Amino acid sequence: MRRRKKPGSKEKLLSYERYLCTEPEKYKGNWNKYFVEKNPIHVELGTGRGQFLSTLAEMNPNINYIGIEIKEEVLLKAVEKADTKQLKNIVFLWYDINKIENIFAAGELNRFYINFCDPWPKKRWAKRRLTHRSFLEKYKYMLIKDGEIHFKTDNEKLFEFSLNEFSFVDLRLKSITFDLHHSEVENAATTEYEDKFSAMGMKIYRCEGIKIDRSS
Amino acid sequence: MRRRKKPGSKEKLLSYERYLCTEPEKYKGNWNKYFVEKNPIHVELGTGRGQFLSTLAEMNPNINYIGIEIKEEVLLKAVEKADTKQLKNIVFLWYDINKIENIFAAGELNRFYINFCDPWPKKRWAKRRLTHRSFLEKYKYMLIKDGEIHFKTDNEKLFEFSLNEFSFVDLRLKSITFDLHHSEVENAATTEYEDKFSAMGMKIYRCEGIKIDRSS
Repeated sequence: MRRRKKPGSKEKLLSYERYLCTEPEKYKGNWNKYFVEKNPIHVELGTGRGQFLSTLAEMNPNINYIGIEIKEEVLLKAVEKADTKQLKNIVFLWYDINKIENIFAAGELNRFYINFCDPWPKKRWAKRRLTHRSFLEKYKYMLIKDGEIHFKTDNEKLFEFSLNEFSFVDLRLKSITFDLHHSEVENAATTEYEDKFSAMGMKIYRCEGIKIDRSS
Repeated sequence: MRRRKKPGSKEKLLSYERYLCTEPEKYKGNWNKYFVEKNPIHVELGTGRGQFLSTLAEMNPNINYIGIEIKEEVLLKAVEKADTKQLKNIVFLWYDINKIENIFAAGELNRFYINFCDPWPKKRWAKRRLTHRSFLEKYKYMLIKDGEIHFKTDNEKLFEFSLNEFSFVDLRLKSITFDLHHSEVENAATTEYEDKFSAMGMKIYRCEGIKIDRSS
């Protein structure tokens, strides 16, 4: 996909001070103080145009949501959605997920969402996939006990790879489905990409990985 | 599939005393004494016409193999194969897997193979699937620590179901592939059914479940 930069989107994005946290490193270990109310924190990695996270934020006022996205043009759309809805429990970070350890401390998050991330299809690119074991270990570290990672993709090879990676890092798999939109698994919110490709008849794969406490 | 009984196959099967153990309950807890040499024991559940297990037994003289099958007509084929090859490390049981707890004790087996078992597609039949949690708990109990269950199927829905069940009983999933014959996962032996359906272009799904020691 070509990445077209619209002139001025950076400036426009930065103007949404209420919905964009520009110095997320400052809140590492203290995210529960960032939000108006102290509530569980759910993070979406690669939040794109934000439909998924805004939908959830609207549905669940007792959960705080953080959306991370590196592309400013799409992030601007996400921020605009939240602003239109005047949501109080959502914030976006214009940030590189490769450096996620700089913004979250151990055990301060309750859930991650990874939706339709780049499949990086070539084998030598495997380490770039957001479900590679090196990323999963980071997310796991940041989750509370029983914290969850919810993963959706339309890419079968990426899904196969991801199931193996989840298992490798000892996340317990749950609610695995090879066809989410024709399954009994709940799908409370969809992404823009998901709506488009599901309408075209593409199958959506989904699973959860649970951080199990092995000490008990 | 219609089940046609050939007259006399029962008598013929029972005549292969060397390859058929007619009183398997007697060996519960003592299977390592049954074989000429004391070696790890691998069990195939629903061994069918026996190509898979005979191939492995020939390749691995230092492993003892037990094939379980309830249909005497196909089991006869399996026994004949072993007899033709004069294998010393294989035995077959004409037995109902629903009663497997009567023939194996805790921790006396090293591996199970489940190949192309009946998918029992209707939801109300789920308990009959050989990868249902109630069966998996039994297999797990019979396995040593780090023991494995290797599962193959061409049925996507059964595979999806099975991944969830493996995870549910805390077997660690490994080497999950959605297309075994076009993957890097080793496939040392095939079943007759697998050869036929793979040649027709059907995808073969496969995974392993490992019994992890949680006490350490």
